[in-house]
Amino acid sequence: MNNFEFLSPTKIVFGKGTENRVGQEIKKCQAEKVLLHYGGGSIKRFGLYDRVVASLKESDIDFIELGGVKPNPRVSLVREGIKLCRERGVDFILAVGGGSVIDSAKAIGIGVPYDGDVWDFYTGKAEPQETIPVGVVLTIPAAGSEASPGSVLTNEDGWYKRAVNAEIMRPRFAILNPELTFTLPPYQTVCGASDIMAHVMERYFTPTRHVDFTDRLCESTLKTVIKNVPVVLDQPDNYDARAEIMWAGTIAHNDLLSTGRVGDWASHDIEHEISGIYDVAHGAGLAVVFPAWMKYVYRENRDKFVQFAVRVWNVDMDFEDPERTALAGIDQLKRFYKNVGLPTSLKDLGISDDRLEEMADKCTAGDTKTVGNFKRLGKQDVLNILKMAL
Amino acid sequence: MNNFEFLSPTKIVFGKGTENRVGQEIKKCQAEKVLLHYGGGSIKRFGLYDRVVASLKESDIDFIELGGVKPNPRVSLVREGIKLCRERGVDFILAVGGGSVIDSAKAIGIGVPYDGDVWDFYTGKAEPQETIPVGVVLTIPAAGSEASPGSVLTNEDGWYKRAVNAEIMRPRFAILNPELTFTLPPYQTVCGASDIMAHVMERYFTPTRHVDFTDRLCESTLKTVIKNVPVVLDQPDNYDARAEIMWAGTIAHNDLLSTGRVGDWASHDIEHEISGIYDVAHGAGLAVVFPAWMKYVYRENRDKFVQFAVRVWNVDMDFEDPERTALAGIDQLKRFYKNVGLPTSLKDLGISDDRLEEMADKCTAGDTKTVGNFKRLGKQDVLNILKMAL
Repeated sequence: MNNFEFLSPTKIVFGKGTENRVGQEIKKCQAEKVLLHYGGGSIKRFGLYDRVVASLKESDIDFIELGGVKPNPRVSLVREGIKLCRERGVDFILAVGGGSVIDSAKAIGIGVPYDGDVWDFYTGKAEPQETIPVGVVLTIPAAGSEASPGSVLTNEDGWYKRAVNAEIMRPRFAILNPELTFTLPPYQTVCGASDIMAHVMERYFTPTRHVDFTDRLCESTLKTVIKNVPVVLDQPDNYDARAEIMWAGTIAHNDLLSTGRVGDWASHDIEHEISGIYDVAHGAGLAVVFPAWMKYVYRENRDKFVQFAVRVWNVDMDFEDPERTALAGIDQLKRFYKNVGLPTSLKDLGISDDRLEEMADKCTAGDTKTVGNFKRLGKQDVLNILKMAL
Repeated sequence: MNNFEFLSPTKIVFGKGTENRVGQEIKKCQAEKVLLHYGGGSIKRFGLYDRVVASLKESDIDFIELGGVKPNPRVSLVREGIKLCRERGVDFILAVGGGSVIDSAKAIGIGVPYDGDVWDFYTGKAEPQETIPVGVVLTIPAAGSEASPGSVLTNEDGWYKRAVNAEIMRPRFAILNPELTFTLPPYQTVCGASDIMAHVMERYFTPTRHVDFTDRLCESTLKTVIKNVPVVLDQPDNYDARAEIMWAGTIAHNDLLSTGRVGDWASHDIEHEISGIYDVAHGAGLAVVFPAWMKYVYRENRDKFVQFAVRVWNVDMDFEDPERTALAGIDQLKRFYKNVGLPTSLKDLGISDDRLEEMADKCTAGDTKTVGNFKRLGKQDVLNILKMAL
C-alpha cells in the first residue's frame, strides 16, 4: 500500500425530493450571485428546471443562466461562461445535469479568477489555484464529477479532449435524487453504468500490491452496478435500484477507491481520443476499449484478473487452469456490456479503421509518452488495442 | 434506502513517517497555540512523543501539554483540559493516541466555548454549536474517532458512559501511520479489531431494506479485518496487514457505511454499561455482547444473518435449512473472537451475575426507553442478553 491523502469534503444530499433544497444549500455557501448552468432541454421537459428555480427564488437567490452544454463539453462555451461570470459578478455556479455540465461548471469556476486562457489548465501549462465554488444537482449517475476533483473538456480546435484535477475543484455540495434518473433512456443509463464501472476498474487494475481492502471496496461497487443495471432497464422507476447505482457512481470516483494505490487510466486516455474525434458517448467508448485493453494487458498480472473473475463475476476458479479463469472474467464483462445494450466494438460504434493511427498518435503525443500504469503503453500498444477493438 | 447526508471532511494523511508532518498540518489550520493531549507513557516509550514535538518545533508551533487520558476517558480530565485551554488561550487541540485521547480532545474542544458544564452535551441537555479544531495522530486502529463526529466519555459520578455526536466534532486532519501500531500488544490489537467490527455490524444489522451497496461495503470491511488480524498477531510488524486494518478502522466509522440506513447500536449501549462499571476494554466488552445480541435478535430478519454468514464468513448456504446457515455465521464470529484471544463471555471478563439487573436498568434508563433498532430492546431484553453472555 502506498502513502496517500484523502478527504471527501463535498456534502452529499441524497434522496427523494432533495432538489427542492438546492436554494438552502447555496444559501449556506453565502453566495450572492449564481450562474445556473445546464445542458439541453431535458431538465425543462421533466420539470426539474422549474423546481430548481422555485427553490432558488424561495431562498431569495439572485441568478443568471447559461444553458447549452453539450455531451463532451466544449471549451468555447466555457470561455463564454467565464466572460459572463466576470461581467455579472457571479460568485457561485450551480450545475444542473450530468458530468458534462458539471465539468463545464468546474472549468468556468477555475477560469474566472485566472488571467490566462482556461485551456492552459487542460494542457498542463497552468495549475488551478483558486475557484468560484460549484454546487451540483445531478441528473445522470456516470461521470462521478459531482464529488471528484476533475474536469474533462474538449477543444474544438483539433478535437482534443483533456482532463485537469485539483482538490479545490471538488463541488461544495451535490444533490442526488435517484427519482431524477427514472426518465433516463436505456442507452444513457447503460453508458453511465459503463462509465462508473470504468472508474472502478481504472483503479482496480493497479501495479500497487497489498491493497486488498480497497480491492474489495472496488468489487462491491462493481457488483452493485452489475446487479442493478438489468433491474432498472426492466423497471426504470425502481427507486432502490436507481439509488444503488447513483450512490455507487459517486463512490466510484470520489477517490476513496484510489487510496493507497496508483490507477491505470489508459482506457480513459484511449477512449478520449475516440470520443474526441467521433463524439460518441464516453461510456459507450469505454465499453469498447476496456475488454480489448484487458486482453492486451492481463498477462502483466494474471492473478489480478483471476481475482476479478472470481470475486466480481463469480466465475468458478479453475485451479488447473487459472488463465482460463482470468479470460472468463474478461469475457463475462464483455457479455454484460452486450446484454445491457452497449457496443463492444468500434464497428458497433460505426467507426472504421481509417483513423486508428491518428488516435494512437494523439493519445501518446506522437509516441513521446506512454499511457497507463498496469502496463505502460506506447503508440504501437495503443494501436494494437484499437485494432483488437475493431 | 433512506434519504441521507454525507461528507467526510477530515483530511486523512496515511502512511509511513507521516507523523513527522504534523507540524505542517497544524500550520495549515492557522493555529496559534496548541494543546498536545495524550494518554500514558507509550507514546514517550516508543519515540512518537519526540517526533511529534520535533515536528511542532520545526513549524514554530507554540504548545502546552496535557497527558494522563485513561481508557474510557473521564469527564474530570476533560474539565481540567477546558480550564487549561481557557487560561492559556489554546486554539487547537492535537490528540496523539487512540480513541480515548481523541474523544477526550473532542470533548475539550466543544467544552471551551460552552458556558455550561461539558457533561451537558453527553446527557443531551445541550448540543455542541462550536468547537476548537482538533487534529489527530492515531496510534490504535479501533474507535474510528479520528474521522467521526462522535465522542464517548465516562462520568465517574455514577460511572455513566455516554456519547455525543455533532458534525462540527470531526477532526480537521488525522495522521495514520501503520508503523505506529507495530508495538501494540496482541490484546490491544484484537480489542481494536473487535471495536472496528462492531462499528460495521452496528450499521450492517439495520431494519432498513434495499441497502445492498453499503451492505457490500460493510462486508468488505469486515472481511479485511478478519483476514488481517491473524496476520498481525503472527507478524506484528507486517506493514501491509497493519495498514489494511488501520484504514478499515477509519472507514468503519466515518459514516460512509451508515449512508441510507438506520444503525442498531444496542450492543454498544449494552457494552457501555459493562465498561462503565467494570472498566474493561470496550472492544473486549463488545466481543462478549455481540454474539449474545445476535442470538437474541436474529429471528427479526433471519435472511440478513444468512447473508452475513454466506458473504462474510463463506458459510456454505444450506438451502434446506437457512436457519442453520444463519446460526453458523454467528458461531463463526464467536469462534473468530476466541481464536484471536478475545473474551466471549462475561465470565471471561471476570464479571459475575450480581450487577446485570443494574446494567439493564441503566441501559434503558429504568426501562423508560428502548435501545437498538434492528429489534427494539427493553430492560428485560437487555437483561436476557446479558444472561446469555454469562
